[in-house]
Amino acid sequence: MAIIKTEIRSGAYYDSVVLMQLQRSLAELPGVEDAGVVMGTEANLELLEQTGLLVDEVKGVKADDLVLVVRAKDAKTAQDALAQVDELVAARRSREGAGEDFLPKSLESADKNLPGTKWVLISVPGRYAAGVSREALRLGKHVFLYSDNVTVDEEIELKTSAAEKGLLVMGPDCGTAIINGVGLGFANQVRSGSIGMVAASGTGLQQVSVRIHQLGGGLTHALGTGGRDLSSKVGGLTARMALDLLDRDPETRVIVLVSKPPDKSAADEILAYARGLSKPVVVNFIGYQTALQEVDNLLFTSTFDDTAAAAVALDGDLEAPEISQEISLDGFKPDQRFLRGLYSGGTLAYEALLILDHYLPAVYSNVPINKDLKLENSLVSQEHSIVDLGEDEFTVGRLHPMMDNELRINRLELEAKDPEVALILLDVVLGHGSHPDPAAELGPAIKAAKETAGKAKRRLDVIVTLSGTDLDPQGMANQQKVLEKTGAQVFLSSDRAVRYAARLVSQLNESSDPQPATSFKPVDLASFKGKFAAINVGLESFTESLKFQEASVIQVDWKPAAGGNADLAALLEKMKG
Amino acid sequence: MAIIKTEIRSGAYYDSVVLMQLQRSLAELPGVEDAGVVMGTEANLELLEQTGLLVDEVKGVKADDLVLVVRAKDAKTAQDALAQVDELVAARRSREGAGEDFLPKSLESADKNLPGTKWVLISVPGRYAAGVSREALRLGKHVFLYSDNVTVDEEIELKTSAAEKGLLVMGPDCGTAIINGVGLGFANQVRSGSIGMVAASGTGLQQVSVRIHQLGGGLTHALGTGGRDLSSKVGGLTARMALDLLDRDPETRVIVLVSKPPDKSAADEILAYARGLSKPVVVNFIGYQTALQEVDNLLFTSTFDDTAAAAVALDGDLEAPEISQEISLDGFKPDQRFLRGLYSGGTLAYEALLILDHYLPAVYSNVPINKDLKLENSLVSQEHSIVDLGEDEFTVGRLHPMMDNELRINRLELEAKDPEVALILLDVVLGHGSHPDPAAELGPAIKAAKETAGKAKRRLDVIVTLSGTDLDPQGMANQQKVLEKTGAQVFLSSDRAVRYAARLVSQLNESSDPQPATSFKPVDLASFKGKFAAINVGLESFTESLKFQEASVIQVDWKPAAGGNADLAALLEKMKG
Repeated sequence: MAIIKTEIRSGAYYDSVVLMQLQRSLAELPGVEDAGVVMGTEANLELLEQTGLLVDEVKGVKADDLVLVVRAKDAKTAQDALAQVDELVAARRSREGAGEDFLPKSLESADKNLPGTKWVLISVPGRYAAGVSREALRLGKHVFLYSDNVTVDEEIELKTSAAEKGLLVMGPDCGTAIINGVGLGFANQVRSGSIGMVAASGTGLQQVSVRIHQLGGGLTHALGTGGRDLSSKVGGLTARMALDLLDRDPETRVIVLVSKPPDKSAADEILAYARGLSKPVVVNFIGYQTALQEVDNLLFTSTFDDTAAAAVALDGDLEAPEISQEISLDGFKPDQRFLRGLYSGGTLAYEALLILDHYLPAVYSNVPINKDLKLENSLVSQEHSIVDLGEDEFTVGRLHPMMDNELRINRLELEAKDPEVALILLDVVLGHGSHPDPAAELGPAIKAAKETAGKAKRRLDVIVTLSGTDLDPQGMANQQKVLEKTGAQVFLSSDRAVRYAARLVSQLNESSDPQPATSFKPVDLASFKGKFAAINVGLESFTESLKFQEASVIQVDWKPAAGGNADLAALLEKMKG
Repeated sequence: MAIIKTEIRSGAYYDSVVLMQLQRSLAELPGVEDAGVVMGTEANLELLEQTGLLVDEVKGVKADDLVLVVRAKDAKTAQDALAQVDELVAARRSREGAGEDFLPKSLESADKNLPGTKWVLISVPGRYAAGVSREALRLGKHVFLYSDNVTVDEEIELKTSAAEKGLLVMGPDCGTAIINGVGLGFANQVRSGSIGMVAASGTGLQQVSVRIHQLGGGLTHALGTGGRDLSSKVGGLTARMALDLLDRDPETRVIVLVSKPPDKSAADEILAYARGLSKPVVVNFIGYQTALQEVDNLLFTSTFDDTAAAAVALDGDLEAPEISQEISLDGFKPDQRFLRGLYSGGTLAYEALLILDHYLPAVYSNVPINKDLKLENSLVSQEHSIVDLGEDEFTVGRLHPMMDNELRINRLELEAKDPEVALILLDVVLGHGSHPDPAAELGPAIKAAKETAGKAKRRLDVIVTLSGTDLDPQGMANQQKVLEKTGAQVFLSSDRAVRYAARLVSQLNESSDPQPATSFKPVDLASFKGKFAAINVGLESFTESLKFQEASVIQVDWKPAAGGNADLAALLEKMKG
């Protein structure tokens, strides 16, 4: 019958690799059947129970106690195994140390030994991580903070202080990043290219980046933020700094933003920020519900596959008119702010409302999406309005406006007289059943409307969605020509027509208040260029991985200050501050 | 000073074309400045007011009164104009009649004069439309019901009765359809092809169809349902019949479903129905919010442009594995119903939960989307479970599972022993920082798990998402080979891996209850083939349009029964019944 022996060490610090290797070494000793070497957390004790190693002696331990359990063929073998623990650890240390140069004991000393590093990787246990991060920021380094179990208050304090200095704190619990081709933490070897990523999600970043590679694309930088960055408490400070950085980076053409679903308020805020960027942004907030998959420069996707595919597609086609098209506002008077849509097609009107809902604060209609925005009187526009003139209320004993243009012709003139109107949206639907030559009637009416505005020295834009095919009886090419001759802008895509109108009218309504000051100092792009050089504190495998990638790296032989005593450590830190 | 004269005629019936033309004829008479000829609805009276034609005499009229208003240079000219009304109407009638053959006065008589029609187009005023539709159904015809202002009760009655006979009622308020290349109502001339459409939206159908044409695609049939069909009251009966028809139609390869946002319950129901079809369905419920853009054979889009583009793309690429892949369930025992996901990547786990949420009723997790589905104990699976083994609770003093496979190896064996488990999902994340050779450890564990199940005569599927690139240090090709050798199925796409698992497990959990009987008799596909032949009741322009398209059509010289007296008309109809 096998015997179980245990040992508990309080306040001892070993890193996770040491613990794993110690457990394996113990289990491999002759006569030993199984071994457990874990910190005494609840989850770890349950795992010991599942493997039959949870005996009474260890049931009362604390989370920061080191628990050693050995099951062996007899008591002596078990006891001998435990007695070898220090020897096994020392053997490992000396093996590791063999051939190694001197390892600095502190960040400061590492910084002197490898001058010019811009980055510090930190993977010490959570309760020590904030302290090490503070030290790194003090030294003016960006922080890659792998450690988890860091409090949200510590995170906010670190990020706020970093933002003032133009430094990034990526994390806590940041598993991954790629800086100029060099992977930090867990990161795949991905081709260089022109897609930049920001992710509050480790494997989200990894999986999207490998799919981008598999689809033939490549990356500039991929920046993890830590999973909590897009919470309303933290407010996406790292994400905003990272987006700003990629927007300024001349090598980056398309940005990808990935996160588990952020809080509503944080999502709204970060999306508003991303809409202010000059580059297309593919957004995957996993599980985020959207009614419109494209809004300005934002494209929403729902899975890692789609996200990668969309980014690669955009990267290959940067003629996207949304982004590149400049809109001139010359000729509008200050009062001209409103848009009026006069639709014959009900669903075209509804699509217009849906799109405008993402660009303008309120659009009134006789068929509103939001009932509070119902026009008091369908015959009289209010502020921004979209009217469906094919609604039942207009068609009792009257032909549909696709057949009979009278209603729209009268209304066009009425809207043109309104000194607050800047833009009129119209649909012209061709095909069987529709008016045989709508441009012949609407064309002169558009011209007259423009003249009415012109006499009052106002510019009036008319945007037409022309819905038809080259086979339609009206002759689409000629309809388009007649409409364009009036000075109207004609779109074949209803989507593009409305978005163009939306962007123009949004700009007319932009407040002239100065933009709020950015809440951070922009990151210096130079720190992302040249050979990557970093200091690593914690998991030695991260140093090995950086060396493998031919980056410059120095490992700190870190131990918790004051032997892990938190009060004493705080005091020491304060004295340095 | 101009003089206004009016005349009011109660209970008179003129069709909308007559009213429009009468108004124009009056306005063109010498000495007449403006004229209004409208039914006395509130909206029409307001329109008269806008053009200065609303005088006291007409303010008290009812909606079914015909209002005639003339403004002329003097009283005599105005009076003379009104006196010419009957003459103008008669002149128009005789002009129209010239060269026309005999026009039947009833549907029955039209049916005898043009035998073999399968369709009746109805565009009489709303209050008469249900009666004409009933008559058409009685004669065994599909109904294209353009008329609006038909009550929802009438709609339900007509559709229910049609469904029993395998007939379609498209409408009321159905503006458009294309049957085998022939446009009904408002419809564009669109190339023939292999995309079929169902739309509770007139211009939605038109705009998507023209964009399909512009993008090089084409249509089989495009079926309007009327805007209310997808309300919870009507329950999408026409839409379901139309979807069923297109699913059976051998010429249709891709289906498009467009609607203004339906009620939640109606949307759920119609989407569930569409998921039962064998063909891909592109869904645009304008403004509908989705968290996942692709679910089984459904692809969600948000604008008419996207909808058309997606349909054309799918039509060109029918190798979509979702649709074509057959899944065998051989070898599972009846108790094997559950899926277990053992993830090292937190966001990969979260994406899996999101996708599974659309396929399985409940998936438990230590990081659930829905808090009610939190695992009581992260170490013990319940029913369907996805566990993120990289969560903080597991990583205190322990290496991340991307570096250390021990936790997953133990858990794999545990899950394999559970007689209710059918499938295990794993992620294997390669790259810098990760375990140098995960397949060497996980491969044998997968093999052992399969053997454990095999000994109990159970099949156990293991689905692996392999996340990595060909440049990663582990050597992706070799990792894949080793994993596949164990009998695991390896996917590079996390999305496809989870969907495959979801579909397999869904099928294991399908109840063996017989499917509910369809609530309709399927439409005979033959009625959609061959030369289009129809009876038209109402707007004569629809007859002209069908003739222009070289369809067979006969116009009914329709007048309301009993001179428009509703009670008498109901009595007459009952006598026929």
